[in-house]
Amino acid sequence: MNVSELRLRLSHAGQEHLLQFWEELEEAQQGELYAELQAMNFEELNVFFRKATEGFNQSSRQEKVDARMEPIPREVLGSATRDQDQLQAWESEGLLHISQNRVAVLLLAGGQGTRLGVTYPKGMYDVGLPSHKTLFQLQAERILKLQQLAEKCHGNRCTIPWYIMTSGRTMQSTEEFFTKHRHFGLQKENVVFFQQGMLPAMSFDGKIILEEKSKVSMAPDGNGGLYRALAAWDIVGDMERRGISSVHVYCVDNILVRVADPRFIGFCIQQGADCGAKVVEKTNPTEPVGVVCRVDGVYQVVEYSEISLATAQRRGPDGRLLFNAGNIANHFFTVPFLRDIVNVHEPQLQHHVAQKKVPSVDSQGQLVKPDRPNGIKMEKFVFDIFQFAQKFVVYEVLREDEFSPLKNADSQNGKDNPTTARHALMSLHHCWVLNAGGHFIDENGCRLPAIPRLKDASDDPIQCEVSPLISYAGEGLESLVAHREFHAPLIIDEHGVHELVTNGL
Amino acid sequence: MNVSELRLRLSHAGQEHLLQFWEELEEAQQGELYAELQAMNFEELNVFFRKATEGFNQSSRQEKVDARMEPIPREVLGSATRDQDQLQAWESEGLLHISQNRVAVLLLAGGQGTRLGVTYPKGMYDVGLPSHKTLFQLQAERILKLQQLAEKCHGNRCTIPWYIMTSGRTMQSTEEFFTKHRHFGLQKENVVFFQQGMLPAMSFDGKIILEEKSKVSMAPDGNGGLYRALAAWDIVGDMERRGISSVHVYCVDNILVRVADPRFIGFCIQQGADCGAKVVEKTNPTEPVGVVCRVDGVYQVVEYSEISLATAQRRGPDGRLLFNAGNIANHFFTVPFLRDIVNVHEPQLQHHVAQKKVPSVDSQGQLVKPDRPNGIKMEKFVFDIFQFAQKFVVYEVLREDEFSPLKNADSQNGKDNPTTARHALMSLHHCWVLNAGGHFIDENGCRLPAIPRLKDASDDPIQCEVSPLISYAGEGLESLVAHREFHAPLIIDEHGVHELVTNGL
Repeated sequence: MNVSELRLRLSHAGQEHLLQFWEELEEAQQGELYAELQAMNFEELNVFFRKATEGFNQSSRQEKVDARMEPIPREVLGSATRDQDQLQAWESEGLLHISQNRVAVLLLAGGQGTRLGVTYPKGMYDVGLPSHKTLFQLQAERILKLQQLAEKCHGNRCTIPWYIMTSGRTMQSTEEFFTKHRHFGLQKENVVFFQQGMLPAMSFDGKIILEEKSKVSMAPDGNGGLYRALAAWDIVGDMERRGISSVHVYCVDNILVRVADPRFIGFCIQQGADCGAKVVEKTNPTEPVGVVCRVDGVYQVVEYSEISLATAQRRGPDGRLLFNAGNIANHFFTVPFLRDIVNVHEPQLQHHVAQKKVPSVDSQGQLVKPDRPNGIKMEKFVFDIFQFAQKFVVYEVLREDEFSPLKNADSQNGKDNPTTARHALMSLHHCWVLNAGGHFIDENGCRLPAIPRLKDASDDPIQCEVSPLISYAGEGLESLVAHREFHAPLIIDEHGVHELVTNGL
Repeated sequence: MNVSELRLRLSHAGQEHLLQFWEELEEAQQGELYAELQAMNFEELNVFFRKATEGFNQSSRQEKVDARMEPIPREVLGSATRDQDQLQAWESEGLLHISQNRVAVLLLAGGQGTRLGVTYPKGMYDVGLPSHKTLFQLQAERILKLQQLAEKCHGNRCTIPWYIMTSGRTMQSTEEFFTKHRHFGLQKENVVFFQQGMLPAMSFDGKIILEEKSKVSMAPDGNGGLYRALAAWDIVGDMERRGISSVHVYCVDNILVRVADPRFIGFCIQQGADCGAKVVEKTNPTEPVGVVCRVDGVYQVVEYSEISLATAQRRGPDGRLLFNAGNIANHFFTVPFLRDIVNVHEPQLQHHVAQKKVPSVDSQGQLVKPDRPNGIKMEKFVFDIFQFAQKFVVYEVLREDEFSPLKNADSQNGKDNPTTARHALMSLHHCWVLNAGGHFIDENGCRLPAIPRLKDASDDPIQCEVSPLISYAGEGLESLVAHREFHAPLIIDEHGVHELVTNGL
């Protein structure tokens, strides 16, 4: 260890406090801290800090975003409800591209399940479905099914490569989990792991924060860390070598996610878009969801905390919210667009500043848990690159069909938790069975109404789970369920159609 | 007691089993049972049963309602979001009629809080607002405020009489509660209590069910029991004598209810309607809410359990659900229309059949709690009279502004419970304060965003409660809050504007 050289580097960067406890550390701790600091580019971090805080201060001086926002024009919007006559064509187009091995999916899975209350990656979470499948398994099986559908439709065996971005904290456990489960039936070489970067938390005056005497407070650099990681791991190069032209990027926590949704991909391709966002309609002005819109003529996501209530409440002549394109972190990018981002635009992207309460050691080396923000995290967002699109489009889908994120632990009146995720999936699959001509009956053999009476039912929806290996989005169930009557819980998987025996039946 | 005459009456009606335990009863029990049975008209009950079950069987033979449903035409629809330019005119019209003492409100409060888990009437429930006001008090204070607003607007002191329908089970406790609270500031003579009827549960073969050896299983006759009760208590006569021309009928459990909403009343009057329904947009096909629509050309509410999923999922070209007029038990009637109902139509209304698990005594006198339906309850619904309207209109409002029903006890992921009701009211009042120019700040003095960040907040919304005595629907707050900054919890009531001191401040 060349500590004096490190000290000099730190000193030049104004970060020499990072070694203030050096003499007190045991040898192993010294080694760890030395390695951690050696790997850091302090000059670059100081530039990030300066630009991020400049941007932060500038935005507070700027005219409020409200006055500069415009809604999505109808001509760049595709809608699962308003363009029903187009859905079949979009789906065919998407399946064609999939069958030609030109579509990949990219999963953002760098976050830890902190709010969910678990210490392992979110994708490993089991929300308590009858099958007890994890989020990773559901997504893997949807990829498998979609490969089959594309083959069936267009006659080519094909592969949808799956790029999985983890972080320093989730990389190892994620890879081990996939290995243990034999990649859920996917070929190992088509599941590509890579890792997003980490950045230190910094005080308001730009000092890197120590969370222990020998440890810097580090956090992933936001889901927009994707683009730097794409470069660092040559992921765009891998896509190019495989001949991929379109990528579907999504977040791990949405249990209903239509991975590589052929309709969305087909729509984006038919529109000639290089960048697209899938959205759900925001119907309540105070719903905490970012909205896709134009600001100063450029597409972006405006976060819910950035706008005034009056703007959030604005409505069009049809009575709908004017800014109703709710962002669900579901994006389409062409590979050339990503190549451009990586080569040209990423380095220009500023980090966003999030003020945080960062646990840290004080000058005596005592751990302090602050009760008000004492520092910042620097993050980029995956949607920061919308502004560089030549042709940007938006595709609106139904929330109940496609979006139910897992964010929090179960709690009274909680939202976005394991129970809501489980219910959302089972309610959707219940609808699939009904729409395919199946029926559910009660203990007396009477048919249950499609929308069960609340008074007669527990809070739980009818339990019904269809394996993604059987149906990707509700298709192909007629031959299994039409004109048949079932008791819940009903499971439809690769072993057949099962009514689980429960107490009382 | 003339038991032999009673026995003869029972025998003629095929209900002689009601006295099967007579010899075993103690004298007091005999007296109670005798009185209960003497008060019943068995011939009439048998007719009710025959017609109700005929109707029930007929409806199952009839062509499914799905094929006969049509959505609300735009020309009978008024909308708080689509007709914003009309709202002021409707409100003025409504306030004018209120100021002329021509508007009454009628509360349906006959139900018990069984699902809510309390033994007293729902209106007495305190959902845990900072003020701990009950539902009854909130409604009373809205009436008081509206009288003031009408007076201020049109210069006449005025009264909005409040008719409160209770049932045998809730009459006494409700009246006592109002007396104890001095009618919440209303004049006693303007709060008129009356009582809906009760009907016995009957077995599938038309036998009245005993829940004890000496007690018939009785239940209120549905909220449509209103019309029979209006006649029995001469309530329409009372309205006529007071010169009332319009009545707003609503259900006790909606914490946001705009009692005698002048916009709704003004809209109905301007349209020349004799009957109107206030609705909220149904946005999820499987939401358990009845929808207002036309069936065979006649307006009615189709309950969610009556229609197929495919019908519930139908959408118009604008992408909205075709049947989206969600019924929230908020109705407008003219007094002449009610007079007509009471005099002419009510006796023709059939009861609906609800199959129920009715606890009952078996032939040995043992209490049996059945695990499948063993009998029926006969009910009428308040919306059964829509079919008789000469001019029916629909008024659509925003759910977050006007509808949050209290139905269930708090439970994990529960809906429509005390917590959701409390949050709905506080979120709405938070919006009122923001729209009036107020701001909320955190413990560091920083302004909180209008839509608070989830990550930084608990599940609870910002605590804010505005007394109905200060604002009926958000109006009149500017002078109290504009350009001011507040810490939550914020209370605005007749004593001023208060920030409650909480721990940590």
